[in-house]
Amino acid sequence: MVVSERMDRANAVQIFGLDGIPEVRPGDDVVELIVGALRASEAKLQSGDVLVVTHKVVSKAEGRLVNLNDVEPSPFAYQLAAVTNRDPRHYEVILRESARIVRMDRGLIISETRHGFVCANAGVDASNVDGANVVCLQPLDPDASARRIREGLQARLDVSVGVIITDSFGRTWRNGVVNVAIGLSGLPPFADYRGQHDPNGYELRASVLAIADELASAAELVMGKLARRPVAIIRGFWWEGEPGTARDLIMDRERDLFR
Amino acid sequence: MVVSERMDRANAVQIFGLDGIPEVRPGDDVVELIVGALRASEAKLQSGDVLVVTHKVVSKAEGRLVNLNDVEPSPFAYQLAAVTNRDPRHYEVILRESARIVRMDRGLIISETRHGFVCANAGVDASNVDGANVVCLQPLDPDASARRIREGLQARLDVSVGVIITDSFGRTWRNGVVNVAIGLSGLPPFADYRGQHDPNGYELRASVLAIADELASAAELVMGKLARRPVAIIRGFWWEGEPGTARDLIMDRERDLFR
Repeated sequence: MVVSERMDRANAVQIFGLDGIPEVRPGDDVVELIVGALRASEAKLQSGDVLVVTHKVVSKAEGRLVNLNDVEPSPFAYQLAAVTNRDPRHYEVILRESARIVRMDRGLIISETRHGFVCANAGVDASNVDGANVVCLQPLDPDASARRIREGLQARLDVSVGVIITDSFGRTWRNGVVNVAIGLSGLPPFADYRGQHDPNGYELRASVLAIADELASAAELVMGKLARRPVAIIRGFWWEGEPGTARDLIMDRERDLFR
Repeated sequence: MVVSERMDRANAVQIFGLDGIPEVRPGDDVVELIVGALRASEAKLQSGDVLVVTHKVVSKAEGRLVNLNDVEPSPFAYQLAAVTNRDPRHYEVILRESARIVRMDRGLIISETRHGFVCANAGVDASNVDGANVVCLQPLDPDASARRIREGLQARLDVSVGVIITDSFGRTWRNGVVNVAIGLSGLPPFADYRGQHDPNGYELRASVLAIADELASAAELVMGKLARRPVAIIRGFWWEGEPGTARDLIMDRERDLFR
């Protein structure tokens, strides 16, 4: 979260989608899958690259899958399902993943996850999951997952990269979803320009760029939703300052006007 | 807003920052400045590129600057200024740019602009503006500004590009700002996967990616805040479907749970 002038030197960034990641199963080693896909596509990871990984492959590898046949819906889940045409068991999983419900209307649930992220359905998602009755949860500790991937790549390939784990979040007031960082390791979440002066001598006061989220969004440009391309490599982005976590991106309760 | 499979073919995207845009003055022709900067840096724009432009250069060229010495604060602006240490004239400009105030607390104003965007301070900003008492407003009609730039580049360089005009917006629940699209021309705001099936046969229901916002965020990775690099070129991103506007990104009142 330290001041970044170095970012201003990056004037060319490349983003590659990594092909060849297979359908991930519980117990798979994400690092091995990435190393294998890099080798198969003759791509090389370089120190300073940012590796962006869709949370779904991490969640699957970590076994964060729920078979709805094993879920007994609560009366409240049945009530919610009566409003829409959705599966009460799906609602039950969403409720269990929610630390707090921020808004609920017309069957739509915006909740705070145990990590503190606020998103639709507590991050529970049925797409790109193998099995008709299976839903996918966010990783238990996405920052720790990112760190393990970073350390694993360092050990296997002798490269020092930043790792971002992403999910697609809707936004207030704007249509559509964007990719954001829910796990982070090896790079700072922000470029903090506060206290620096613009070329006209004006002291910047509110300029804290959420670069981890911008990198996450940039990566989606090569990922697509149907292409089984859950990993992207961003090259040429300069950062400096203390590495942080995606939890740093969560707004403090005291500052939050929309709790 | 049409289905996009083509995006899944983009597996390498490049982002260049365009150097050599001078300090922009009211009356300047943004297209001429971009053409000049391209020539000076021996860069070529290609059909299919996405040109991303910080709104500030557009606003300045369009004369959307206010000298605070010409502003008479209202009693309400004085009241707000008493809470913080900010200039009551600055608050007055924010109030005049606000169609509606969504939240107001501790001197922070989240308002809806006349375009319908919800953002801090109604988009009024004092940074990167020439002159100590001058603040910059958003363009009057950023979609029209984007269209003029696109048409101007088509006429001058015979290229067909997408154009995005950006601003930095804070987000609910997350720290830091990200670049988003406030003006758009020549490309769709969304990649809409609804109704398509993932590799496991699951029908996607909520997958509408706000690609215009993700492109805006990606562009900031090469822009920086201090580098006078207000224009970026994104190459290799595939899109298809009807071009749209940034207004399409604004959530309908009926769907909005956070008005």
